[in-house]
Amino acid sequence: MLNKVVIFGVGLIGGSFARALKQAGVVKHIVGVDRSQAFLSRALELGIIDSAAQPGKPGADPRVRPQSATAAVHGSDPWVRPGFTGFEEAIAGADLILLAAPVAQTARILQSILPHLDATTIVTDAGSTKTDVVAAARAVMGERVRQFIPGHPIAGRETNGPDAAIVDLYKGKKTVLTPLAENDPAAVDRVAAAWKACGAIIHTLTPEDHDKVFAAVSHLPHLLAYALVDDIERKPHSDLLFQYAASGFRDFTRIAGSSPEMWRDISLANQAALLTELDAYLAQLTRLRASLAAGDAAALEATYANAQRARRQWIETIEAAEPPLPKDAAAE
Amino acid sequence: MLNKVVIFGVGLIGGSFARALKQAGVVKHIVGVDRSQAFLSRALELGIIDSAAQPGKPGADPRVRPQSATAAVHGSDPWVRPGFTGFEEAIAGADLILLAAPVAQTARILQSILPHLDATTIVTDAGSTKTDVVAAARAVMGERVRQFIPGHPIAGRETNGPDAAIVDLYKGKKTVLTPLAENDPAAVDRVAAAWKACGAIIHTLTPEDHDKVFAAVSHLPHLLAYALVDDIERKPHSDLLFQYAASGFRDFTRIAGSSPEMWRDISLANQAALLTELDAYLAQLTRLRASLAAGDAAALEATYANAQRARRQWIETIEAAEPPLPKDAAAE
Repeated sequence: MLNKVVIFGVGLIGGSFARALKQAGVVKHIVGVDRSQAFLSRALELGIIDSAAQPGKPGADPRVRPQSATAAVHGSDPWVRPGFTGFEEAIAGADLILLAAPVAQTARILQSILPHLDATTIVTDAGSTKTDVVAAARAVMGERVRQFIPGHPIAGRETNGPDAAIVDLYKGKKTVLTPLAENDPAAVDRVAAAWKACGAIIHTLTPEDHDKVFAAVSHLPHLLAYALVDDIERKPHSDLLFQYAASGFRDFTRIAGSSPEMWRDISLANQAALLTELDAYLAQLTRLRASLAAGDAAALEATYANAQRARRQWIETIEAAEPPLPKDAAAE
Repeated sequence: MLNKVVIFGVGLIGGSFARALKQAGVVKHIVGVDRSQAFLSRALELGIIDSAAQPGKPGADPRVRPQSATAAVHGSDPWVRPGFTGFEEAIAGADLILLAAPVAQTARILQSILPHLDATTIVTDAGSTKTDVVAAARAVMGERVRQFIPGHPIAGRETNGPDAAIVDLYKGKKTVLTPLAENDPAAVDRVAAAWKACGAIIHTLTPEDHDKVFAAVSHLPHLLAYALVDDIERKPHSDLLFQYAASGFRDFTRIAGSSPEMWRDISLANQAALLTELDAYLAQLTRLRASLAAGDAAALEATYANAQRARRQWIETIEAAEPPLPKDAAAE
C-alpha cells in the first residue's frame, strides 16, 4: 500500500496513473502538482487526485484552511482553495513521486522537490526519452539520484488534460524501466509494483538501449510523417494533392497530428540515436531510389516483400500478445 | 440501362463494381472474366456475375450446354460448366468492359478482346496508374483507343477475391477518369454514369496529372513504409525493435502490408513521377537532418507544426466531405 503518491502533471499520463492506482486500491492519498490551476481544479473535481499544489508555491496555513473555505471559493486567493496545499507540504512524506510533465521540465522539477524530499521517497518519471532524463537527474540530484528510477509507459493517445485520463490506459501495455546502478533493487520493485497495479507489463532496458529502440520504432516514424506532410503542404499544387489523399495517407501521417512541441523536445533529447536511425533510413531510401531508377523489379519486390512478411509476423507474434491498441493512440 | 457488362477480374475491385451496378438496377447481365476458374465459380455462386469466361478460351456450344449441365457438375470439362461461356461470346455485344485485373496485364487483355470488340463497346479500367495504361492502350488499339476511357476508383481494402467484394465499396469515394482527346464525350459520360450508379463521385484529370498526384499522396508513402519496415527487419537487433513497436508504428506501416507484386508494378509503371517525389522527399529529409544535427529547435518545430496544422486542415476540410474511410482500406 502506498500512503502518499505525488504526481507532477495531471493530464493523460499522470491522471491515468492516478485513476488506475485508485481503482487497484493500492494508494491512500494522491497529490497532484501542475502549473495549470485549471487542470488541478478539474482533477480534484473528477476525483483523480485528493489534494493539489502548484510548483514552488506556498500553501495556506493548513490550520487556517478549513475556516477560510467559503472565502476561498468566492475569493481571489487561489492558495486557500479547498483541496489546495502548499508545495513543500505536498512533497513531504511521499512514498512515490511520478514526473509526468514535459521532459524538458525534468531538471527544474527535480530542483524544486530536492530540498523537501524524504530519504525514503522514490522518484520516477514517464518521459519518452531516458538518457537525457538520467543526465538531468544526475546533475541535479547528485548522490541522491539513487532515489530516482527512470521509466517510460508505452501508452498514449492524441488527447490530453485531466478529462483525457482513463483507468485502463496502461492495461496490458508495456512500461519500460531503465534502472541505474545506484538504485536500490527494492525501490525498483516498488515502482514496478505500482505500474503492475495499473495493469502494465514491466520491461527493463538500459537508458541507452531504450533510446536506440525508440529512435527506430517511434521517433524516426514521427519525423518521417511530419516531413511528408510538410513537404506536400509546401508544394504549389498542395490543394490538388490533399484532395486525392486517402486512407493510406491518413494512417501513414496520423502521428504527424501529435504535438509539435513535444516531438521537437523528443527529437532533440534523443538527437544522437535519432540521427543514427535517420542516416540508416536515408541510405536505405538511396538504395531503393537506385533500384527504382534502374527499373530493377526484383530488387523493389524483394524489399517490399520482406517488409510485408516482417510486418505480418510482427502483427501476429508481437501485437497479438497485447490487447488491441486504441485507434487514436499516438503519443508513445 | 446497360444490357451487358464484362468485368475482367472478379475480385475486390471488379466484384464490388458488379455488386453496386446490380444493386442500382442499371445492368441486365454481367459476365466475369478471370484467369482463376475458382474465382469465377465463386463469383457465380455469390451472384456477383451472371456468366463466366476464361481469357481466350473457347466455350461449349451454347445449344449443347443445357443438356450437359449434370455431366458438367460432375464431369471434368470445365468449359461446359453451367454459367461458363466462350471468351468470344463473352465479349461480343458488350456495352461496357471494365479491366480490373493487375495493370501489368492491360496490354494482353486488350489484345485478346480487340478481334471480338464491337464498334459501340466502351472499354474502361481501374488501374492505379494511368500514363502507362494509356500508352499500352494506344499501342494495342491504334485508332480504336477512342473506345478506351481510362479510370481509377480511389477505394480499396487489404482483402481480395470475390468474397471481398462489397456493394458499397465506392459509395462516396472518388473515381478519377482521365479521358483521351480521341474519346467521344458521350462515351465518357456513360462510364461516369456507371461509376455514379455505384455511388462514386467523378473527378477528371489528365493521365499525367493523375500520376503526379498519386505519386505524392499514395505511391511515395507506400515506398516509405516498405523501406522503414525492411530497414528495421535487416538490423541485427530487429527482434528487440519490433518488441517495442506500438500503435504509431502500426499505423505508419499499415500500407506496407499491401501486395508487394502490385506495388512493385505501380512503382515501375509510375517511375518518373515517383522518382521526382522521392527526390523532393530526400531533399526535405536532408534539410531536417541538418536542423536536427545543429540542434535547431525552431526549425524542427516549424516543420512539425506546419505538418500538424496542414494535416488537421486536411482532415477537417477534405476527408470530412466523404464518409469515414474503412479502417483497413489500403490498396488505393
